[in-house]
Amino acid sequence: MEQIVIGRNPVCEALRAGRAINKIYLARGMKSAATADIINLAREKQVPVQNVDKQFLDRLAPGTVHQGVIAQAAPYAYVELEDILAAVKDADPLLVLLDEVTDPHNLGAVIRSADAAGAHGVIIPRRRAAAVTSVVVKSSAGAVEFLPVARVGNIARTIELLKERGIWVVGAHPDAPQLVWDAPLTGPLAIVIGGEDKGLGRLVREKCDMLVKLPMAGRVNSLNASVAAALVLFDAVRQRSRG
Amino acid sequence: MEQIVIGRNPVCEALRAGRAINKIYLARGMKSAATADIINLAREKQVPVQNVDKQFLDRLAPGTVHQGVIAQAAPYAYVELEDILAAVKDADPLLVLLDEVTDPHNLGAVIRSADAAGAHGVIIPRRRAAAVTSVVVKSSAGAVEFLPVARVGNIARTIELLKERGIWVVGAHPDAPQLVWDAPLTGPLAIVIGGEDKGLGRLVREKCDMLVKLPMAGRVNSLNASVAAALVLFDAVRQRSRG
Repeated sequence: MEQIVIGRNPVCEALRAGRAINKIYLARGMKSAATADIINLAREKQVPVQNVDKQFLDRLAPGTVHQGVIAQAAPYAYVELEDILAAVKDADPLLVLLDEVTDPHNLGAVIRSADAAGAHGVIIPRRRAAAVTSVVVKSSAGAVEFLPVARVGNIARTIELLKERGIWVVGAHPDAPQLVWDAPLTGPLAIVIGGEDKGLGRLVREKCDMLVKLPMAGRVNSLNASVAAALVLFDAVRQRSRG
Repeated sequence: MEQIVIGRNPVCEALRAGRAINKIYLARGMKSAATADIINLAREKQVPVQNVDKQFLDRLAPGTVHQGVIAQAAPYAYVELEDILAAVKDADPLLVLLDEVTDPHNLGAVIRSADAAGAHGVIIPRRRAAAVTSVVVKSSAGAVEFLPVARVGNIARTIELLKERGIWVVGAHPDAPQLVWDAPLTGPLAIVIGGEDKGLGRLVREKCDMLVKLPMAGRVNSLNASVAAALVLFDAVRQRSRG
């Protein structure tokens, strides 16, 4: 099944990453630096560009901010967990596991943050979780073209497998005994983030080597799943940079 | 103008916060702990609850995940910047200024993170920026009922005013000379985050006391505005907790 890629950055990054694209639809009258980039990249990659009315794009991707650009691309290509691990060179693995994150905007934001933090991949469950849809591609600002995403049948079993490979598995949970800043996040690391509704499931929590929490000083006292993921990821980056 | 408040948590928090609510619509057949909480709170606050068909709620808030609960509330009440400053007691002020953040999900997520970090308020521009709509209330998970939001005519002028009050103003910008972790974020602090499209404007950037950046190790190399805000906010919390 084809996937539409929506908006300037996502289409640009899909072209740069060499993703198979059948055609790019550009709204008539669009003239900007970003549009020129897309036209040049498309020529280089031999992807046809078709000028269409804005209304055509509105119908192709209703309710989205398409910015006058939509690409018809090959389906998103997931990778295998083993490929993510095998691709880690000269660095300690840094992975993110999402346990039943269902909001595509959150999945996209996690992929974007994980890419920016220099992580090696994101692992999501095959069921009861957001998959990499057009909305996710857009929310990731195109980062999904570069950061590999693997789907697994069972997050708890995947945690066991990662532990066997010497990867330290850290879950984010409000009842954790220690703050993220006080936990050792150097070395091979996988960060586990729970879903929007229930957080980390009991079984998944029990499989983790360690749980960490973020300080909560407010009235509502919970964080968006993608914000929690970014806070743990970047604290791992901070700790690594301090040796 | 009335505002509809959508979803379980947001309606619950609006009731808890004592916001004026005219009526709560509850989908027939909804039975959960959260629904029971809402019914009890509504009784306590003398807010009428009306059972309706799910389709009625779908029409009231099309395209949203309303979870079977929608409240008809008074308009969102912004506060004045002076009120935010006057309300800070026994603590160094911690504020977030948003410069042309236009995505309501980002505004809601920033408010949620700012509440969780123990900040005292969020300041947004009156023009060219997302206002506190129903989508923002929902994205904030109800935190908007507790964390004050002020609207100002001009962010650059507001920065000047905050500096006159002895508040250190720190902007997030990719060209900053130092990483957020290395910058002093203790003491009275306002964090300035730029909009999704262009980041911090030149004038706003020049008014800041200091610019900080986040380390970028990926291919796309930019962060969601709400993620960037959370990373700077929680590093301020970390630094404060370390004395």
